[in-house]
Parts: sequence; structure tokens; C-alpha cells
Amino acid sequence: MIVVGVDPGLTRCGVGVISLEENTTPSRAPKFVRAQVLTTSPRFTHEDRLMQLDDKLCALFGAFRSHEQVVVAIERPFFTKHNPNTAMGTAQVMGLVMVQSRRKSYRVEHFTPSQVKTSVTGNGRAHKQQVVNAVSILLGLNSGILAPPDAFDALAVALTCTNRGVGVVSATSINKLENAETRAQRMWKDAVRGVSNKPVRM
Amino acid sequence: MIVVGVDPGLTRCGVGVISLEENTTPSRAPKFVRAQVLTTSPRFTHEDRLMQLDDKLCALFGAFRSHEQVVVAIERPFFTKHNPNTAMGTAQVMGLVMVQSRRKSYRVEHFTPSQVKTSVTGNGRAHKQQVVNAVSILLGLNSGILAPPDAFDALAVALTCTNRGVGVVSATSINKLENAETRAQRMWKDAVRGVSNKPVRM
Repeated sequence: MIVVGVDPGLTRCGVGVISLEENTTPSRAPKFVRAQVLTTSPRFTHEDRLMQLDDKLCALFGAFRSHEQVVVAIERPFFTKHNPNTAMGTAQVMGLVMVQSRRKSYRVEHFTPSQVKTSVTGNGRAHKQQVVNAVSILLGLNSGILAPPDAFDALAVALTCTNRGVGVVSATSINKLENAETRAQRMWKDAVRGVSNKPVRM
Repeated sequence: MIVVGVDPGLTRCGVGVISLEENTTPSRAPKFVRAQVLTTSPRFTHEDRLMQLDDKLCALFGAFRSHEQVVVAIERPFFTKHNPNTAMGTAQVMGLVMVQSRRKSYRVEHFTPSQVKTSVTGNGRAHKQQVVNAVSILLGLNSGILAPPDAFDALAVALTCTNRGVGVVSATSINKLENAETRAQRMWKDAVRGVSNKPVRM
């Protein structure tokens, strides 16, 4: 199974690909496949840049074998009134990724930056360097290999998807994972259970 | 020449098509071709709705003859922090329209709601009913024919595009129209010139 993490952006769109062997235990380690940054130049019009990125996404997804189970995990940034143009471009790139994914019948997952940071570092407000270090450790990478920070972000998104259990179940039971928890969330719940051991009426 | 006005939206995407005969004077009247609203249901996932809309846009653009000169005019709404989800869906639909347009080599134009209202009614803060009335008069329509308000908005966007002169020039000189003015803008400039007739150093 392949998990494609995407850190969307019009100028720089990070893509991180990891693989998980199917039918194994949840404790297996995800393997690094590749990471890259799809770029477009501001020399072109906004619409032409979107088309160029759409072509690059098409080529990216076209490289996977047709029988491969692929999940696409997209980081959903927070949009504020202070970054309307960047937000619009990012949202449009997300839209293109979603449409291309569904055209190939790939499952699509969304994660917030905070969910991604919590999942890989245990801290929802982790700095970029902490994310780079965590991704490097989790994937057994030398942190000097992959320079573009966007690629590390994208790998972190893919790892978040596997941490939340999407890779460890069959396609038929995948819907049950809508409310899957991150490791940090489970730790919080366990901690709360330790404090209060009274039986709870459901 | 065909002008396709688009009022983007994930649930309801208005499309208004008008035609202009080529090689005629700027005073010729645009003709109504058709207006419709492309819809998607919230029963589906966000990504599947985007794909459905992408298919509908593909079918729409596929209906034009290959030799036809087509300009796609898109309304660019203002995004605030109060409508982040709606804004994201709208931005994504805009992105799909842009990519589909450029795949067919159609020129893309963007107009703000205020530009559209000013262009068809002379008032940038006109109400929806004023826009409906103005579009009906400009296209010689009985206002009872086209019920969906989104379709009237989309026709207004297409009319804005023709009002700004995109339809009255050859494709080779179309780049000069980047700074084309609306009728209201010209009226303001003429009014200012009337007040101050002194020569201006450039």
C-alpha cells in the first residue's frame, strides 16, 4: 500500500510517498519511497500554473501501478483573512489533488497542520526542525538527504495517515477509521482513564 | 465568439453563455445562448463533488465547436474569515474552471462582484433583483424565463466581460485589454476630465 502525503501550494507543492506492506501488524515500519516538490513559476498566469501543476500531479499518480492501493493524505492549512491570495491558490491545488485522486479511485484523507505535528512529534506546535528530525527518525533517513522542507512536511502528512491506522486495515473496514486517533490522542485518553477508573454508563 | 460567465460554487455553480458576432462594431448587442446551474449534492464527499463538477464542466466546454473562440469569465468572490469552508469550495471550483479552460486554450478573465454589478447596473452595490432586471434588459430576456438567480449572476459576469471590450478585438490584440475599463469607470474618468481640462504631464 502506498500513502502519498501532500503539502499543497501553488509555488511549491510538497509530495512525500511512503509504502506499507499489506496484511502485516500495525507495528510495522513505513518505508520511504520518495519525496519531491512540484513547482510552478510566477512568470506564468495563475491559471496556467494550475494547469502545469495538474499535469505534474497526473504524471505523479500515473507512475503508480494500477493494482496498487493508494491513499492520498492532504494537509489542510488554516486560512485567515491575512493571506487570501495564498489561501486561494493553496485551496485550488488541494482541489486538483482531490479530483486527480478520485479519478484514480484513491481514498483521500485530510489532516490539519496541528494533527500532523502532533502525530509525528507529539507536540501540535512543533517547529519545522522538530518535524524534520521526527520524520528522519521515523523513516530512517539521514536528515541531510532531502533538502526541501516542503518534502518533509509532505512525508509528515503521509506518516500521520499511517499513524492514524489507515494503512493497517482492509479496504472494506476503512470507513471505521474516520474517527481513528493519533498516538498522542490515545496517550491522553489512557492518562485520563488512569485518573478515573469508575465504570461509565453508556 | 462565445463568452462563458461563471459564478463558482460547490453546491450551485452558475453558468451563463452569451455570443458575440466577430468583426463587428463595439455597439453590437450580445446574444443569450443559455444559462444553467451545475449542482452537486452534499450527500457525497467533498472530493467526489469536485470530481462531479469537473465532469460537468468538461461536458459544458466539450459542447463548443473546436474552431470557436471562447473566453471564460469567472466571478472572484471576496473571502473572509467568516466563511472559510464555503470559500475553500468556491476557490476549488474556480481552480477547476481555470484548468479546464486552459486545457481548451480558452482565455480566462476574472471579475469581482463589485465590477460585475457596476458593469451591468452602474452601481457596485446593486441588489440581486437589480442585476436580474439589468441582465434581462441587456439580453432581451423575459425575466420570468430563467429562474435560478445564480444563472443571472453568471450571465452578468459574461456581460461584464463583453462590456470591458474583450469581445470586440482580435485575439492578437487581446492582451491590450488587461486594463480595459467598464462603462462606469469611463464615465467617472470623463466626468473628472470635464472638471479639470488642464494638460497633464505624463
